[in-house]
Amino acid sequence: MAYSSEKLSEEKVFKDPVHRYIHVQDRLIWDLIGTREFQRLRRIKQLGTTYLTFHGAEHSRFNHSLGVYEIVRRISDDVFKGRKEWNDDDRLLALCAALLHDLGHGPFSHSFEKVFNLDHENFTKEIILGDTQVNKVLQRAGEDFPRKVEEIIAKTSKNKLVVSLISSQIDADRMDYLQRDAYFTGVSYGHFDMERILRVMRPREDQVVIKQSGMHAVEDYIMSRYQMYWQVYFHPVTRSAEVILTKILHRAKDLYEANYKFKHEPIHFYSLFKGEMTVNDYIKLDEAIILYYFQMWQEEEDDILRDLACRFLDRNLFKYTEFDPAKEYKKLTQLSELFEKAGIDPEYYLVVDSSSDLPYDFYRPGEEEERLPIHLQLKNGDIRELSRESSIVDAISGKRRTDHKLYYPANVIYDDRNHPQIKRQIRELLELE
Amino acid sequence: MAYSSEKLSEEKVFKDPVHRYIHVQDRLIWDLIGTREFQRLRRIKQLGTTYLTFHGAEHSRFNHSLGVYEIVRRISDDVFKGRKEWNDDDRLLALCAALLHDLGHGPFSHSFEKVFNLDHENFTKEIILGDTQVNKVLQRAGEDFPRKVEEIIAKTSKNKLVVSLISSQIDADRMDYLQRDAYFTGVSYGHFDMERILRVMRPREDQVVIKQSGMHAVEDYIMSRYQMYWQVYFHPVTRSAEVILTKILHRAKDLYEANYKFKHEPIHFYSLFKGEMTVNDYIKLDEAIILYYFQMWQEEEDDILRDLACRFLDRNLFKYTEFDPAKEYKKLTQLSELFEKAGIDPEYYLVVDSSSDLPYDFYRPGEEEERLPIHLQLKNGDIRELSRESSIVDAISGKRRTDHKLYYPANVIYDDRNHPQIKRQIRELLELE
Amino acid sequence: MAYSSEKLSEEKVFKDPVHRYIHVQDRLIWDLIGTREFQRLRRIKQLGTTYLTFHGAEHSRFNHSLGVYEIVRRISDDVFKGRKEWNDDDRLLALCAALLHDLGHGPFSHSFEKVFNLDHENFTKEIILGDTQVNKVLQRAGEDFPRKVEEIIAKTSKNKLVVSLISSQIDADRMDYLQRDAYFTGVSYGHFDMERILRVMRPREDQVVIKQSGMHAVEDYIMSRYQMYWQVYFHPVTRSAEVILTKILHRAKDLYEANYKFKHEPIHFYSLFKGEMTVNDYIKLDEAIILYYFQMWQEEEDDILRDLACRFLDRNLFKYTEFDPAKEYKKLTQLSELFEKAGIDPEYYLVVDSSSDLPYDFYRPGEEEERLPIHLQLKNGDIRELSRESSIVDAISGKRRTDHKLYYPANVIYDDRNHPQIKRQIRELLELE
Amino acid sequence: MAYSSEKLSEEKVFKDPVHRYIHVQDRLIWDLIGTREFQRLRRIKQLGTTYLTFHGAEHSRFNHSLGVYEIVRRISDDVFKGRKEWNDDDRLLALCAALLHDLGHGPFSHSFEKVFNLDHENFTKEIILGDTQVNKVLQRAGEDFPRKVEEIIAKTSKNKLVVSLISSQIDADRMDYLQRDAYFTGVSYGHFDMERILRVMRPREDQVVIKQSGMHAVEDYIMSRYQMYWQVYFHPVTRSAEVILTKILHRAKDLYEANYKFKHEPIHFYSLFKGEMTVNDYIKLDEAIILYYFQMWQEEEDDILRDLACRFLDRNLFKYTEFDPAKEYKKLTQLSELFEKAGIDPEYYLVVDSSSDLPYDFYRPGEEEERLPIHLQLKNGDIRELSRESSIVDAISGKRRTDHKLYYPANVIYDDRNHPQIKRQIRELLELE
Repeated sequence: MAYSSEKLSEEKVFKDPVHRYIHVQDRLIWDLIGTREFQRLRRIKQLGTTYLTFHGAEHSRFNHSLGVYEIVRRISDDVFKGRKEWNDDDRLLALCAALLHDLGHGPFSHSFEKVFNLDHENFTKEIILGDTQVNKVLQRAGEDFPRKVEEIIAKTSKNKLVVSLISSQIDADRMDYLQRDAYFTGVSYGHFDMERILRVMRPREDQVVIKQSGMHAVEDYIMSRYQMYWQVYFHPVTRSAEVILTKILHRAKDLYEANYKFKHEPIHFYSLFKGEMTVNDYIKLDEAIILYYFQMWQEEEDDILRDLACRFLDRNLFKYTEFDPAKEYKKLTQLSELFEKAGIDPEYYLVVDSSSDLPYDFYRPGEEEERLPIHLQLKNGDIRELSRESSIVDAISGKRRTDHKLYYPANVIYDDRNHPQIKRQIRELLELE
Repeated sequence: MAYSSEKLSEEKVFKDPVHRYIHVQDRLIWDLIGTREFQRLRRIKQLGTTYLTFHGAEHSRFNHSLGVYEIVRRISDDVFKGRKEWNDDDRLLALCAALLHDLGHGPFSHSFEKVFNLDHENFTKEIILGDTQVNKVLQRAGEDFPRKVEEIIAKTSKNKLVVSLISSQIDADRMDYLQRDAYFTGVSYGHFDMERILRVMRPREDQVVIKQSGMHAVEDYIMSRYQMYWQVYFHPVTRSAEVILTKILHRAKDLYEANYKFKHEPIHFYSLFKGEMTVNDYIKLDEAIILYYFQMWQEEEDDILRDLACRFLDRNLFKYTEFDPAKEYKKLTQLSELFEKAGIDPEYYLVVDSSSDLPYDFYRPGEEEERLPIHLQLKNGDIRELSRESSIVDAISGKRRTDHKLYYPANVIYDDRNHPQIKRQIRELLELE
Repeated sequence: MAYSSEKLSEEKVFKDPVHRYIHVQDRLIWDLIGTREFQRLRRIKQLGTTYLTFHGAEHSRFNHSLGVYEIVRRISDDVFKGRKEWNDDDRLLALCAALLHDLGHGPFSHSFEKVFNLDHENFTKEIILGDTQVNKVLQRAGEDFPRKVEEIIAKTSKNKLVVSLISSQIDADRMDYLQRDAYFTGVSYGHFDMERILRVMRPREDQVVIKQSGMHAVEDYIMSRYQMYWQVYFHPVTRSAEVILTKILHRAKDLYEANYKFKHEPIHFYSLFKGEMTVNDYIKLDEAIILYYFQMWQEEEDDILRDLACRFLDRNLFKYTEFDPAKEYKKLTQLSELFEKAGIDPEYYLVVDSSSDLPYDFYRPGEEEERLPIHLQLKNGDIRELSRESSIVDAISGKRRTDHKLYYPANVIYDDRNHPQIKRQIRELLELE
Repeated sequence: MAYSSEKLSEEKVFKDPVHRYIHVQDRLIWDLIGTREFQRLRRIKQLGTTYLTFHGAEHSRFNHSLGVYEIVRRISDDVFKGRKEWNDDDRLLALCAALLHDLGHGPFSHSFEKVFNLDHENFTKEIILGDTQVNKVLQRAGEDFPRKVEEIIAKTSKNKLVVSLISSQIDADRMDYLQRDAYFTGVSYGHFDMERILRVMRPREDQVVIKQSGMHAVEDYIMSRYQMYWQVYFHPVTRSAEVILTKILHRAKDLYEANYKFKHEPIHFYSLFKGEMTVNDYIKLDEAIILYYFQMWQEEEDDILRDLACRFLDRNLFKYTEFDPAKEYKKLTQLSELFEKAGIDPEYYLVVDSSSDLPYDFYRPGEEEERLPIHLQLKNGDIRELSRESSIVDAISGKRRTDHKLYYPANVIYDDRNHPQIKRQIRELLELE
């Protein structure tokens, strides 16, 4: 029997708090889950620094990846199976892409990518196509199979339908993470009737569409997404932790480039510092490694690196204030100068962070990030873009919301044992007194 | 104002998936949460290796500690407050003991304690009484306050009522972990009507008692506990991961004692190996540190250490079979000899693991572990031990259940590239063929 | 002790699926719940005919009334108590108004009010002020107390703050029914973080306001309300049952006025038919009475009354089609004529039903129904209307959505045993073929 | 195409709060749901008088019947389908029996059956086999089909496997009602992992068995059942309402037999009074009819009938005290005499009510009610009775628990306006003072 159609002698079942059970019948899927590269995702948190705001958010990308797989499995096995627009040969392709779509994520991806100019999507590609256990397993299903899976994840595949299952404005990825992140953080947002949405999904040549009768469930999903972004993902305290994390990496890199002599050699960071990170080195990175170094750096001689590492581990975060970059540019300059005078390096201790999101968007060809809109299938079979049918979605469609905050170390600013006058000026500018 | 009665200007609220919100009004509690020693609990999983069986079980002891605190706070503020048997001065004592009761837990405590002969209760004591941030904060509430808190946790305090809130057969600790572990694993067990139980708790001189009208809720709680033990805590796959973890530590210690030259110096382990662990070294240990070394050990020259480390990280666990130590002792000896002949060190690769639990016990003075039974308060005010009123509890009271399993590396046993005959004998003895 | 401050010797607790427990400490509240007029609400469904669409929606107004009471109790006892803007003397007034606000509802209120020109708000007033058990209990708290309670419910009281607790765009009434109706129907909409909203409510002189930090929870509440309206309350099948119910009442009244001789004398309806309904007669009405008559009418000689009664009881409802009254007026006339020709009385069998809702509205003084908008309390203490702060709410604010449907008996239209040609014309006009 | 294999052009879906969705694909099932006899179940509460204790318990037998159907559908379509021990021809038989198993229930069955010597099981049979819409629909699937369905429900069928799906100690009936009644009452008991149990059910020739790996879920189910019986079904307040209801019926019958002249003719009761109830009369009975008469009887001249009817409708129930029939027989006689002397008819106002249940029982051939025990399927394929494997179940197996209570009208007993001395004696005997 072909490996790609081989079934397990007995179905394997994972207990999952979000989807109740995750079912694996395919030998190929089971083998992928057992690979070293996939197991590594257990050691990478799904929400990075969010656990410092919502203490329940300690779940890993392993969790989420299984969840996305399960959603695609249900769509394929319970909804699409037998429909003429659905090619059952695409089932395994979709399942593998779902399971592996986050394979290239590293520890605290957001910050690492920014500081070291990495791209987790590229690493996903390299892991799938490179000399890895994952690649070996995929190869068994066909020489060309790894590449096909990779193209789905990279959205370069011609199979637009399967791509849209994994990456669109209503894909399995989003449906899992909204619910999962809501579950683990404990927030009341993030709930929508996924079972309903799955039941009204229909395959079309180039995209999954939603039967019109499910429009309200989709509206609810879009509102959930909106709330999760602003209540959880862009929470200002999480961003504070992220600011500190980014600055730790920044400082370590700067020190390295300045030939600083580390007490404890950061061997796992060298290729990052040099911009020569290979996929093999990358796979070894996980949050344990990073937190190990942060612990070591708590005893470094460099004041800034030491202080920032302690802050992160002891959750001694920066405070923040609203900041309008358009109007308050001058104030930022003043603050920067005052920080310098007070001996607080503004490069590391005075940080503007901005978050921005579009809750939903219709199609704008040629724009920076072309986002596939959601399409409804009307009773007569016609297809119509969601915001043309839903007044609620139309009202928010294409409306970008942006938030800017200015982060600073409040305890230092209030410590009047040195530079009391300058600090008072700083506090006045920050409207703290 | 005395520090011990100082309130925050605005109540702090943590979103908690189990108790919905955790409320902090006291400056002292807020300061304790902010200490380095308490924040460290974020880096120690509540359920050790259980996440390798139930992927959702990635929650930390930080989570659980806040939960126990919140339960005691609700008992104190919503139920006991104003009752004549309750001394409101004990409130803060109870809250601190609840929050800090697990402070001495290290990474994968169970295995570490076994291999290195440690005692997390002793470390809790040392952290509370030693030169730590926690101690400094507690001191501010009274010179003698750290000792008082420690005595509650150690059950040596004369204040039996507060002790029973934290440590009894129906304490805040158990009520939190049963619900929390059920929530994060996703199992259906572990649910009981805690709100009801809290409402019928009554303070008595030497113990918390339960109004008779809440008996059924308590029965339900005891059954939940029973199910959680056998379905989650003693799950054979979790125990497999624990066996491997224990053997890694064992091997590392043996190698150290044999003057093995580690490629990567295990500096954080030296005091463990030597049995000279100080509280300061101990506080630095967390799961990141341990997992960092396991990663390093994946590249050690020693075959056993390397293999076991890979097995743990890649979740390539041992298989198991039922084992009756009373009847099958001889078989174990035979297997051990065959393993040696096949070049598989039985010391590390043939392991009996036993789990045992009493779902509930009445009081048996003088026995090894004196467990405080649950007492009901009858309508006429009399007190009666639970199993004398509840036929369900009586039926299971004092009945110990024990389970033995024999663990072995199935892939090696099935690999007939060497010693095929011996391996067949092994498989026959294990009834695998 | 004054009756109004008398507490029960032991708190009474109701198990409630939505709020978990409903707590009653006040003698007055306990006595009100025990009155005949309040117990009558057990025999009136909260959602009228909705149970014919969502079979779980069989819950009564008794349920809901306790829920509204409990929410106001929590606001009063857990949030407002002790705040200087809150007069604790208003507590009992608010609780009574919450408990009794729906007292005047009759069976299937919506239809009855329409056909018989009744007003449940007026009956609430009459029950509270009339010669009833409820009035006697309220009197014991002060001669003027019934009138005060009534004025809160009627929104004529000068105590705007208490009025806003019961009747505003974010009142206890709505917060209970959205959650309760979602629970019993089983839909996924209707969830929002009420605990959060309660915690950020603040009393002001003339209105409850919401602390700005709770804005997102309020947005979520408004979206829940929107979804519940269109998914549950305005569900076209429910409206079909309502159309039939209305037409039964209509027909019975017409027959009465035409001196039709009922087989079974509808004695409970006479005062309705005559427009002379007194509060004493009204209190005797409940759904059992109405359904009893519908059963009797299944055996009436009048074809229309009999048919409609059978349809309602056996859930043999009308089908529907979209209908645009502006554009399709002519078609309606044509259909009406064809119905007459086919011997189907269009008065009873061809019905346009319209539903319309504003998801949220800012204040429009002088408009038909002045709706109290939601106000946020900014950090600096300023008050601002919600839609000026929330872009999501702004997007939907004041946007009325209306839906029109045309109902008809599909089985008759498809029955070609008589008038086959006319029926085919009808079906063509209805676009059924 | 044969009617029995006809599918709906589009699957129908009911939103259900317990099972989320109930799916109907078969034309036959859809037609059965639409029958008058099945729709009648909407007007009969699942839990009789329980709503007077747990106000949420207002759900109907219609609800429950759909739920049992859905569970059997899932077992059949998701678990048994394709297994060699399962005959797919039995699918529709099982679905119909599940849907219709409670068809013969009348309003407040328990009391009616007791007073009028009825048997709902017999009415189920008569409805299925008689001249009814249900029978007509079933006939279309085969002349013999109604009888086959009836035999499954009556447990007289030779198809033991299908019988055990509907009626055994772990059948679809119990699994639905435990969860459903828990949901609507809001109690925390009644939860167990049904999804797990369904997945480990296996068809055998004469019975459904449970794979050993699901034993713990079954234990949990049995404990849920135990708690639901004692916390909900046998709640003493519910039994008080039932006592009153029974006494109303009793009194009406006695009055009828004594040729009492009713103000309002109880035409629907005559065949009950005479013991000549036909299935056609029976089908017309529902709770609306009964409650209508109770309302009428509130104005009867007979003091007892009037008082009891008012008590029921206004929830002015009897109080109760523990009662040991073995030891307190004499006291009951004394009380009875005192009641007579005080002018309170003990026949109606002094009532002993007993409840009794076995949480689980192994097989006891020849005993009154032969209860099919639960069997586990061991890994080697052997079958073993549950209590031999589960120590928890063994501990409670076969242990009957019984509770006796004595009910009386407390307000009368405390009213010293007449017979003050006798009443004091009564109160002393009841230990009320």
